[in-house]
Amino acid sequence: MANLSTQPYKGARDFYPEDKRVQDYMFGVWRKVVESYGYEEYAAPIIEPTEIYAAKSGEELVNEQTYRFEDRGGRDVTIRPEMTPTVSRMIAGRRQETAYPARWYSIPNLWRYERPQQGRLREHWQLNVDIFGVSTIDAELEMLQIVTDIMAGFGAAQEDYKIHVNSRKLVVAIMAEYLQLDATQSHKVTKLLDKRQKIGEEAFYSEAEQIVNDSETIDRLRTLVEAKSFADLPEGIQDNESIKTIQAMFTYLKDNNINNVKFDVTLMRGLDYYTDIVFEVYDTDPANSRSMLAGGRYDGLVELFGVEPLPVVGFGWGDVTLEAFLRGHDLLSEIESETDLHIIPIGSVLRESQGIAKLLRQEGINVAVDISGRKTDKQIKAALSKSVRYVLFVGDSDLDKERFNLKDLKDETEQELSIPEIIAHFKSA
Amino acid sequence: MANLSTQPYKGARDFYPEDKRVQDYMFGVWRKVVESYGYEEYAAPIIEPTEIYAAKSGEELVNEQTYRFEDRGGRDVTIRPEMTPTVSRMIAGRRQETAYPARWYSIPNLWRYERPQQGRLREHWQLNVDIFGVSTIDAELEMLQIVTDIMAGFGAAQEDYKIHVNSRKLVVAIMAEYLQLDATQSHKVTKLLDKRQKIGEEAFYSEAEQIVNDSETIDRLRTLVEAKSFADLPEGIQDNESIKTIQAMFTYLKDNNINNVKFDVTLMRGLDYYTDIVFEVYDTDPANSRSMLAGGRYDGLVELFGVEPLPVVGFGWGDVTLEAFLRGHDLLSEIESETDLHIIPIGSVLRESQGIAKLLRQEGINVAVDISGRKTDKQIKAALSKSVRYVLFVGDSDLDKERFNLKDLKDETEQELSIPEIIAHFKSA
Repeated sequence: MANLSTQPYKGARDFYPEDKRVQDYMFGVWRKVVESYGYEEYAAPIIEPTEIYAAKSGEELVNEQTYRFEDRGGRDVTIRPEMTPTVSRMIAGRRQETAYPARWYSIPNLWRYERPQQGRLREHWQLNVDIFGVSTIDAELEMLQIVTDIMAGFGAAQEDYKIHVNSRKLVVAIMAEYLQLDATQSHKVTKLLDKRQKIGEEAFYSEAEQIVNDSETIDRLRTLVEAKSFADLPEGIQDNESIKTIQAMFTYLKDNNINNVKFDVTLMRGLDYYTDIVFEVYDTDPANSRSMLAGGRYDGLVELFGVEPLPVVGFGWGDVTLEAFLRGHDLLSEIESETDLHIIPIGSVLRESQGIAKLLRQEGINVAVDISGRKTDKQIKAALSKSVRYVLFVGDSDLDKERFNLKDLKDETEQELSIPEIIAHFKSA
Repeated sequence: MANLSTQPYKGARDFYPEDKRVQDYMFGVWRKVVESYGYEEYAAPIIEPTEIYAAKSGEELVNEQTYRFEDRGGRDVTIRPEMTPTVSRMIAGRRQETAYPARWYSIPNLWRYERPQQGRLREHWQLNVDIFGVSTIDAELEMLQIVTDIMAGFGAAQEDYKIHVNSRKLVVAIMAEYLQLDATQSHKVTKLLDKRQKIGEEAFYSEAEQIVNDSETIDRLRTLVEAKSFADLPEGIQDNESIKTIQAMFTYLKDNNINNVKFDVTLMRGLDYYTDIVFEVYDTDPANSRSMLAGGRYDGLVELFGVEPLPVVGFGWGDVTLEAFLRGHDLLSEIESETDLHIIPIGSVLRESQGIAKLLRQEGINVAVDISGRKTDKQIKAALSKSVRYVLFVGDSDLDKERFNLKDLKDETEQELSIPEIIAHFKSA
């Protein structure tokens, strides 16, 4: 029989311990910040009935990009490509019992069938943060403050990234009143604007002409796309209520020292369920051009599950784009192992070494005992390759005098210590 | 359009925040103990090529119980039903570069298509712990010590559970030498023994008769099944090398105050890849009869991936059976929220309340600000329903005097404190 491949499934990742350490670090900062705002973690099955995506996630996603199959009982199911329909299903299931504002977060694994490319794999993990039951912009503002605190938690400066903000309500008004498009054209132009960055200016206008076929409308579209600030917008639009909302948000954010927000009338978001404010965050380094996180208000989604509407604002932040951002800005240094100490028994002292390990574990120190029986230098190499900082040598004479050599593999220093001194060393570290 | 269902996919679970807190507590104890032994976390995609299960996981599992489908590129893939083939694939992929002993753990989500029943769902989470590169019983002993430490970490007494131990090598010898079965019969009797507890004595012997159809062999089988200790085993078997190995293990475990191990010659393990020592852990409460965790030595599995064999011992421990065990022994009390404090603004003081929250967060306190604008009593109820212990009232007069009422919802006490005093309160807690 031919050998099986050791590679993971195409477009998906194995996390060896050194990779998992990086992921755990990223998840740890995410968790710490969102929990500091009172968000509670939830989770749900990775398989959902396909119908929950059919309604609002957009046709392309459901028909071309999902892991969709029939289970052994004939049910049409999908491995979740995004978390929003799931969290909407859950909150709808407890629409009455839930205490609002409900602040929920999750870090689900999500799958999309796509050609794997830079910054975009078939699976990723995504921080999902949602606040339910708040209809004022306090909800959006809290989201953007969380984003800012997470970025600061990773050591990023505000110059390293930019928050783009727009409003779906404004987009609807622009499409109908300023561009005078019908519903079908409006939907197409929205989708086209959404992929503008990806396809480039030329393809954008050429596709736009196919949709509207009217040079005055194309000129108006050009005015929009080229608007850099509120002042560049055509008159009628400037008075729109949504513009005032966004301006109020910007004032509050500036008061809270958040200065990297930008109004972007071309920001659309690919998903169909957004109803008002939408936002995305971009790396300011053009080498990492994909949006890192995206979110907005989607007040209508729970209604699909037969309950009363509920105001909701949320965002999703993927681990692949985050890691690219952190590496690009040199914010990921080597992360030490969770293992504090690697004990190297010299001679037939395995049982005694395990006894020492037991004592140290009781003090909260994470200790691996090398039970490979290999040579000492190989055992030191093993500790090094696992990024464990300290090794402790245990031999017969050490046991006799009850003092042991503790070697710091990072600083390359060594000291002879008693067990209580070893415990004190790690407790103070 | 008909409303969508708010229920999760059949046989799978939603984790609302109060459920997730319980899961996080269980995962936390698992992690803490295995990391104290120097185990490093890894992870892998939930989708694997089906072929990695076909070889060794047993036909029933692959053909009847998997979530198997064809992806959009025509690949035969399976949502993982167990982690062992995956971790074998990964270690095989770095057979040479890995430093041994490699101690790896993971808490993957696993899926099996089965009729959901008590203690057994279609999906569960499972702690997987494996040590690679150790051919001595030190590996098995470490596993059983980890199990014991985890149980102690949950507050369980050794009387609450029992560790059953057997050896696959011994089983092979018994089948061939004592029962004198051929390979096919031997395989069938092994599978039958594995499900004996489930189907009951009568069905067991009736199926056994169909396999061997020879009353002397059935009598011998009965002698085996009824053996309660080494001494009850038929002579020839008592001298088997595996018996000595198990006895040596038991001596070491007793020396380490582990007294709830039991030799069980009928313990088989359903999976085909085990090569020597196998073990399972059972609740001593017969109401929870399903095995809670299971593992053993499976030295051959990496060879499927075309690399040199490697000694491996590992186990898997599911969250569903663990939770049943903890609830059965009253070891799961209510777990408090990660949110330390819920701030209730009284009047138009939202911005000021947010300012206070910001100060407290900088001190590591997790603070939710109620931005619902609802009545005070509703806001208190919201905090209670989220199991948040403390609420802080912020009103105009409080802001003037810079002192605020901190209410302990658990003890139903209240005190007026300044911000520095509030910080000190949470830091000392």
